[in-house]
Amino acid sequence: MNAEIINVGTELLMGDVVNTNATFIAKHLQDYGINNYFQTVIGDNPARLEAQIKQSLSRSDMIIITGGLGPTYDDLTKEIVAQALNLEMVMDLASKERIESYFKKSHRAMPHNNLKQAMIPDGSRALDNNYGTAPGVLIEQNDKTVILLPGPPRELKPMFLNAIIPFLAEKRDFMIVSDRVYIQGIGESHIEEALSSLMIESTNPTIAPYLHENGVMLRVSARARSQEEGHALNQNAVNVILETFPDNIMGVNIGSLEEELVLELTKRNQTIATAESCTGGLLAKRITDVNGSSAIFNYGAVTYSNTMKTQVLGVDSSLFDSVGAVSKEVAEAMALGVKKLANAHYGIGITGIAGPTGGTVEKPVGTVYIALATTAGCVTEKYMFGHRHLDRESVRYAASQAALALIHKHLK
Amino acid sequence: MNAEIINVGTELLMGDVVNTNATFIAKHLQDYGINNYFQTVIGDNPARLEAQIKQSLSRSDMIIITGGLGPTYDDLTKEIVAQALNLEMVMDLASKERIESYFKKSHRAMPHNNLKQAMIPDGSRALDNNYGTAPGVLIEQNDKTVILLPGPPRELKPMFLNAIIPFLAEKRDFMIVSDRVYIQGIGESHIEEALSSLMIESTNPTIAPYLHENGVMLRVSARARSQEEGHALNQNAVNVILETFPDNIMGVNIGSLEEELVLELTKRNQTIATAESCTGGLLAKRITDVNGSSAIFNYGAVTYSNTMKTQVLGVDSSLFDSVGAVSKEVAEAMALGVKKLANAHYGIGITGIAGPTGGTVEKPVGTVYIALATTAGCVTEKYMFGHRHLDRESVRYAASQAALALIHKHLK
Repeated sequence: MNAEIINVGTELLMGDVVNTNATFIAKHLQDYGINNYFQTVIGDNPARLEAQIKQSLSRSDMIIITGGLGPTYDDLTKEIVAQALNLEMVMDLASKERIESYFKKSHRAMPHNNLKQAMIPDGSRALDNNYGTAPGVLIEQNDKTVILLPGPPRELKPMFLNAIIPFLAEKRDFMIVSDRVYIQGIGESHIEEALSSLMIESTNPTIAPYLHENGVMLRVSARARSQEEGHALNQNAVNVILETFPDNIMGVNIGSLEEELVLELTKRNQTIATAESCTGGLLAKRITDVNGSSAIFNYGAVTYSNTMKTQVLGVDSSLFDSVGAVSKEVAEAMALGVKKLANAHYGIGITGIAGPTGGTVEKPVGTVYIALATTAGCVTEKYMFGHRHLDRESVRYAASQAALALIHKHLK
Repeated sequence: MNAEIINVGTELLMGDVVNTNATFIAKHLQDYGINNYFQTVIGDNPARLEAQIKQSLSRSDMIIITGGLGPTYDDLTKEIVAQALNLEMVMDLASKERIESYFKKSHRAMPHNNLKQAMIPDGSRALDNNYGTAPGVLIEQNDKTVILLPGPPRELKPMFLNAIIPFLAEKRDFMIVSDRVYIQGIGESHIEEALSSLMIESTNPTIAPYLHENGVMLRVSARARSQEEGHALNQNAVNVILETFPDNIMGVNIGSLEEELVLELTKRNQTIATAESCTGGLLAKRITDVNGSSAIFNYGAVTYSNTMKTQVLGVDSSLFDSVGAVSKEVAEAMALGVKKLANAHYGIGITGIAGPTGGTVEKPVGTVYIALATTAGCVTEKYMFGHRHLDRESVRYAASQAALALIHKHLK
């Protein structure tokens, strides 16, 4: 089955909003073995939208359309879809009641144009919206399925999980089962040279390389009728990859570095504490992104000023004059200080220049020192992110990533 | 001039990667007054890619294509574009030299298939890539422009800024000048009812409402030949909006709440310190995202455990038994504690349950207390984010946003 995604929204065309809805939907289509060949972003323009819907109906079995279900005059998705499919618009009484009670609950008068949201194409099914007023719509007509979802991710995601996932589960005739092999220290083209016959000849599973923040990820994907069958189909190709690059394998099907960290430290019953300067809390944020991180993380210090580095972490203040705040010595003192303060098994210290200002000739923007304190002592690495990363945001992210990689390497 | 964006990449269709390239490019097109009516994501499939390029050439003046310029056999964008435009592929010697020296500099042997990256369509211009091997390509043929850019954002962004922006600046005949009016406390449909005649009748500027994390943003956009002319054209509509909702205006053309915070505290020569539990460093991270934040931010504590709340911030440990860690009292003690510790003008304390686990009947997932300590005392607010937000990530983001809004309100 082929599905395509159409995201309706001028804010996407203007670059105001990142299209996370397409990613969210595509990921689930992939899990259910439904091919996704096209994603299109288009504005609230009736002629272009209708032409797009007709083209999509001509080439895909399922169209998932997001956005344009709001109450305002430029929200036209439902009406255009109904027109393209020759369906009348009718009032859905359950949706009308739900919208009226939504306003009643929040003690606000319902503007008349919100009633438009209760209109749906005749013969379609309204999908309840528990986080907003606009209902979703599911239309099945002549072997084609058209699904309309609200644009705000907060409304779209729960509706997709509640109403669309069970529908997809019924529709699928097979699933795509993937195994991911993570490789570091070899370039994409070397990997392809070494694996070219496997990659070209194998059709089920297929093998494809992707650049990944830590190197290259090879995705081995089989079409199968069950998870078990899929992994069995993948096994031979995965083995060939593991044998071809024995020294460069990071892992198979591993999660993000922060997920791996929480998993591994939980297993060991150990804790980590962080002391951040240039990353400003990003490392602590990434670790605590993981549910269950409270078992391994008690404390993170964001010591942005020198005074706070000394006062909170006990960094010797003479270091700021002698070697500077961005130095191996200060990173070490931060790591050791926070480890002691939090009584943790590991302490991480990060100090550097995120930019765009603050760089010097000796220490240009992107210079970062990261120290890892363990019971056995301290290791410190110096990184120069400036020549590979353009802006403050990516230098900070790269530094947090390097810190996670440093502890990951140590735990291996 | 109409431009469209085509992003080539199976990883986008599979939902592995969020399409930030489209957002980045769209934002710049908008700034240069170039209409963007379509964004399409498509895989490395020759037939579908060629059909898409031909359709795009038939309806748009400019096509910007990202991805598929890598060295591996499935990277086909350049070849397909050349075929669609009837152009031969030729070796670009400068790119060949650049790629060879790229490998020499990193002391690696160049795999033969990297040479493919130096091939470009005859008559086109190669665009230097300072962060990777693949050159970009700029093709001008029969009033059509086709621009090919590498997929990795780290390579695409600098190439776009260096080579494409000057090209767009030459091409534009007018620009779009926008003024953004931020409104809180009124729904989108009420705003439209009140402004309907203005919104429908005005064509230059146009007025369009967007949902925004703090309420509704009205974008007033004029086509003009200069910034000054644009703002002058917008002025009347902006005034009507300001007069229609005198009590609900958050501001005109304001930045993010964290940018506003850094701006305002810098102006006042004041500092803020943060003490976070459930947000785990996200608030500190957002404040320090802003270049120049070191003038107003010295210290943030991520006290995830009760022990660290007491040890670092001086929270009375008897509170954990009497009212619990997620309580007004603990939020206040955290805010006052961190304010004192960092000797700051403001202290923020956040404690809550981000989920998905840890909720109880009295304190369900999404319950968050946020306290703001000032020289005049402490204000604390209780928030219930659970019914509006689905997951850990959005509860945490909503809490950080509420904390910024709380201090924003106080500073007004």
